[in-house]
Amino acid sequence: SVNPDLGSERQTASFCVERLTALLDGGTEQTRIRRAVVEAIESDPVFSRENQYFQTQNERYEAAVRKAVHLQKKLHEMGWTENGPEYKYIYRALSGDVAFLLHRVFMRSISVLGSDKQIAKWIPLATQHKIIGSYAQTELGHGTYLQGLETTAVFDTATQEFILNTPKISAMKWWPGDMGRSATHTVVFAQLYIHGKCYGIHPFIVQIRSLQDHSPCPGITAGDIGPKMNFEHIDNGYLLLKNVRIPRENMLSKFCEVRPDGTYVRQGSQKINYFTMTTVRISLISDEVLTPLMKACTIAIRYSVVRRQSKLKPGEQEAKILDYQTQQEKLLPQLAAAYAFYFINDYLQELFNRGYTEIQRKNFDMLPELHALSSGFKAVITQHCTAGVDICLRACGGHGYSLLSGLPSLYTKILASCIYEGENTILLLQTARFLIKCFMAASAGQPVPPSVTYLAAVKHGKCPAKNKLDFLSPDIYTEAYQHVAVRLTSNTAAKLQGLIQSGVKKHDAWNQCTVQLVQAAKAHCHYIAVKNFAETVEKLETKAGIQKIMKHLCDLFALHGIFSNTGAFLHDGYMSAAQMDMVTASYLDLLAVIRKDAVPLVDAFDFTDKSLNSALGSYDGQVYQRLYEWAQRSPTNQMSPAYERYLKPLLHNTLSKL
Amino acid sequence: SVNPDLGSERQTASFCVERLTALLDGGTEQTRIRRAVVEAIESDPVFSRENQYFQTQNERYEAAVRKAVHLQKKLHEMGWTENGPEYKYIYRALSGDVAFLLHRVFMRSISVLGSDKQIAKWIPLATQHKIIGSYAQTELGHGTYLQGLETTAVFDTATQEFILNTPKISAMKWWPGDMGRSATHTVVFAQLYIHGKCYGIHPFIVQIRSLQDHSPCPGITAGDIGPKMNFEHIDNGYLLLKNVRIPRENMLSKFCEVRPDGTYVRQGSQKINYFTMTTVRISLISDEVLTPLMKACTIAIRYSVVRRQSKLKPGEQEAKILDYQTQQEKLLPQLAAAYAFYFINDYLQELFNRGYTEIQRKNFDMLPELHALSSGFKAVITQHCTAGVDICLRACGGHGYSLLSGLPSLYTKILASCIYEGENTILLLQTARFLIKCFMAASAGQPVPPSVTYLAAVKHGKCPAKNKLDFLSPDIYTEAYQHVAVRLTSNTAAKLQGLIQSGVKKHDAWNQCTVQLVQAAKAHCHYIAVKNFAETVEKLETKAGIQKIMKHLCDLFALHGIFSNTGAFLHDGYMSAAQMDMVTASYLDLLAVIRKDAVPLVDAFDFTDKSLNSALGSYDGQVYQRLYEWAQRSPTNQMSPAYERYLKPLLHNTLSKL
Repeated sequence: SVNPDLGSERQTASFCVERLTALLDGGTEQTRIRRAVVEAIESDPVFSRENQYFQTQNERYEAAVRKAVHLQKKLHEMGWTENGPEYKYIYRALSGDVAFLLHRVFMRSISVLGSDKQIAKWIPLATQHKIIGSYAQTELGHGTYLQGLETTAVFDTATQEFILNTPKISAMKWWPGDMGRSATHTVVFAQLYIHGKCYGIHPFIVQIRSLQDHSPCPGITAGDIGPKMNFEHIDNGYLLLKNVRIPRENMLSKFCEVRPDGTYVRQGSQKINYFTMTTVRISLISDEVLTPLMKACTIAIRYSVVRRQSKLKPGEQEAKILDYQTQQEKLLPQLAAAYAFYFINDYLQELFNRGYTEIQRKNFDMLPELHALSSGFKAVITQHCTAGVDICLRACGGHGYSLLSGLPSLYTKILASCIYEGENTILLLQTARFLIKCFMAASAGQPVPPSVTYLAAVKHGKCPAKNKLDFLSPDIYTEAYQHVAVRLTSNTAAKLQGLIQSGVKKHDAWNQCTVQLVQAAKAHCHYIAVKNFAETVEKLETKAGIQKIMKHLCDLFALHGIFSNTGAFLHDGYMSAAQMDMVTASYLDLLAVIRKDAVPLVDAFDFTDKSLNSALGSYDGQVYQRLYEWAQRSPTNQMSPAYERYLKPLLHNTLSKL
Repeated sequence: SVNPDLGSERQTASFCVERLTALLDGGTEQTRIRRAVVEAIESDPVFSRENQYFQTQNERYEAAVRKAVHLQKKLHEMGWTENGPEYKYIYRALSGDVAFLLHRVFMRSISVLGSDKQIAKWIPLATQHKIIGSYAQTELGHGTYLQGLETTAVFDTATQEFILNTPKISAMKWWPGDMGRSATHTVVFAQLYIHGKCYGIHPFIVQIRSLQDHSPCPGITAGDIGPKMNFEHIDNGYLLLKNVRIPRENMLSKFCEVRPDGTYVRQGSQKINYFTMTTVRISLISDEVLTPLMKACTIAIRYSVVRRQSKLKPGEQEAKILDYQTQQEKLLPQLAAAYAFYFINDYLQELFNRGYTEIQRKNFDMLPELHALSSGFKAVITQHCTAGVDICLRACGGHGYSLLSGLPSLYTKILASCIYEGENTILLLQTARFLIKCFMAASAGQPVPPSVTYLAAVKHGKCPAKNKLDFLSPDIYTEAYQHVAVRLTSNTAAKLQGLIQSGVKKHDAWNQCTVQLVQAAKAHCHYIAVKNFAETVEKLETKAGIQKIMKHLCDLFALHGIFSNTGAFLHDGYMSAAQMDMVTASYLDLLAVIRKDAVPLVDAFDFTDKSLNSALGSYDGQVYQRLYEWAQRSPTNQMSPAYERYLKPLLHNTLSKL
């Protein structure tokens, strides 16, 4: 039975929930397929995540391996293939709680970086799980700066082998998933040396554990890096190499080869490879970043209409906490952001598909723009969504702090996305470098890529809004975001040039501008996100109330961004104080409007109770019962040896009853 | 041996570290006592926290109980008494990792709320640990809004007993520490009913577990609420009461008594009791909020001079990451905030001591101001410090994400401080209510408490700064903060009045202003923090470079606040865009200045390696060795059953060597 406080929220939806779900999925047929996959996975007890909050790191790892092995059976049983329509829903249905994810990266790197002969040898072995692969790039001492990696691979002409070493402790491979306990093989990135000359970083296939008894191969020291903030199910590992010899054929050689005599040959273009690295940043957004925020919104919003606390009106029943303006102001902008980023993700996917087609035609013109967009949006979306999950957690008070709410694990997991696949600050500076370059080019009248043509059109106008309703016009706010992005880019470019002209060395000048460069990069992405949301809304069907509610969310996303960052819009007088007061008024009005549809808007995400795995977020809103029942099953409710050992001697010999 | 990259940072300190440590401690004698306590605790293996990141919730609980029992012995052995100078350092030296903290709250509540007879009966039993107490206020359905608690205590004249019940699932007591597994007794807060009439919330002593075998008493269901984001060592518990009968004497009756015939008698003033609740918010700041931020700064800053990544200058060695402006901009403002809040904490402590003296003289005039300050600063400091720890964690990249860095547990623990002892948003609204009231009074020419007299002096001037150096003048920036606080308070007061005059009901009008009221409350606290920091610096000794470096930090704290919130200062034209550019320039300049003293500034906090419990933050900066050695001891490096069960069958029958 559904909690009436939650049920009543669904009766007044201004739009058709099922239709919005289909819109998000990309059609009703996609919704059907997705639900079938979720049903198949969730009805299989091996994939259960029910006890996950009670398990140790060792138990989580073991379960993830069990699931990975079982998944192979399941794929076969269900007839799901890598090219089938179901495939993309499997990982999401498992909530990523499965081992051997790096095995897939291992395979992809061989496919992309390996010669045809290497592919023919290794891919079948990996596909059949006769070997388990990992991907060993990051070292204790080096992450983002790949050129600094210290592992070496020295070519020995005499034996036709590479000799691999991690010569210092900081060179030790550190973090690779599946490597701590599972992998038999890994792709090691190392500095290639031939006849004493360094040729830079290259990939090598290295066997690390025996296929007979799983013991480490000669020269190998490997293990697990220990506890982390999340990802308990993954055996992130370390790897020391001491004179490990591998045959010449084990260097992945699609782009570079070492001939038997030690001649180094570079062949073909590596650009497609850079493109692959860039797409990874986009591909993680959906499952690793958007899904957690959407889940967190679902949990926090459902809880906020079930939880009643204090009185809004004297003499009345206690109010639902979502009726407090401050609670709306916490949660509803996160909901709007989830939709905004969902749509920008669609936009980026499409752009990258187009880019891929162009690149296959040997046209690499789009690469710099794609790199800038993927870097910037990876950083902006991960940062924004991580903050959003944090807000959802805190907005649920004490119950949000219980692991049983599901929110802590969503937070500790999404937080990692700000760090992996490129640390966010460094990525934003990559985007900024592109912006400055394009701004200079545009100023000199040269052509620039489509996403930055706006930088050429520096206008010194003022915001034309005359009343608070004007701020519900996408033209008004999109233009404001554009203005800020141009101003921050051009001002920082000017500062940079000024410093250089005054004699500061170029790299010092760059460093002195980086705080502001980061701001410019964020403003650029924020502008594109707002513009894309507005354009998406315009194209939506007007039926079933969909366009109307999406327009509200778009307005909220845009106005929340202005309200939270007023200085950027006020700075040069583009907006006046009076206009900012209108923004505030419109923004606060919108909260009350969207609040009415808050529950239907999260229902449309269509998460099952099992996928939320939350005592606060279930569809029926029976929060307190679920918390109580779940807590009773905690291992902390077993008898503790602490009683016999410490409490009993302490309490002994007191009166039986006071 | 100290890592030379860390060692070199200490040779160029602009001030005397030992003297700054003494300043923070309140004198060299205090430093000596603190170090002696730390030494005694840390040299005792029972108190070791070395394995804490590897332990399950059950193991953490057991260790905390063992430590609590051992601590009693230790106190005796060392001659440490509750009134001795060592006492306040014990909890800090244990990093709070000990059981029976609620036992102390249990005792304090009896001391404050109990009659002399009750104190005489219960306090000796509790002191000798013949019973273990807890404090059961929060329920599944009610936290902050105490009036809504649903537990009932019905007086039965016939038997001279109270009958206690948790009539609904939402009435179940939930969260009390030490209650899940340890406590024999607890203070239950319940709605008192006599002859069918409700007299509101009252405290009752209830025995929950047998003193013979620790089994639950009749009518009691109790247990542990399960896993949380942190506090694994505490058995936060639940408690159901079903017709639990306790004698009339068990209602704590210093302020209210129920006579045998059911007559309800209220006696004395409860105001001192409210004051006690208020002081708890202040008392937690030091150990639960400031210490974690200071530890996080120590870890992240030491790591940032040891970690080298990428090149700042082409052709040179890789740079220390603290030499990047973006890294400085992350960490140094957190360091400045740690000092700012350290000093405001001193200020609040002193104010509360004064308040206590006044209240003992039956002068309650200071109560509203103390309540407003304690609410506002509890919220602002917990929020700011939690954000600071988060920034420190992320600034350490992947290694920050490892539990072995110490940063994840600092974060997950400090986060709770935003929720417990009053949810932050609600506390800020309490402060705002006080501000609005005082603003109205001041506008009407009535006297107001000292901390808000500035509200009377609404000035419409402009910031007088003419160049970037002017922004290093405390008068300039303090005045700017004051201006913003006044503007936000007066504007919100005007909005509130306007709404009410236009016919909106008072409570609706209040709700519609709450987002802005929260901003006003924060601005008020921020202003006081800046002003207090500036005043503190002025009084410091000029010797040994102390005042100079503290002045830099004060400037940084103030300018960072403006830089991060430019809109508030630009809004009404108090500052111009040109002035804001000066703020930015001064702010960025300061980062480079303070960076030189960053390591000495965290060294002055004087944390031992054991208290940091971090592979990244140790005094010698041997980060990589420590991570590696520590990881090897992780239970995840024991043989896993996953190999025999799942991996071996999978890998079986492949070639032994490829």
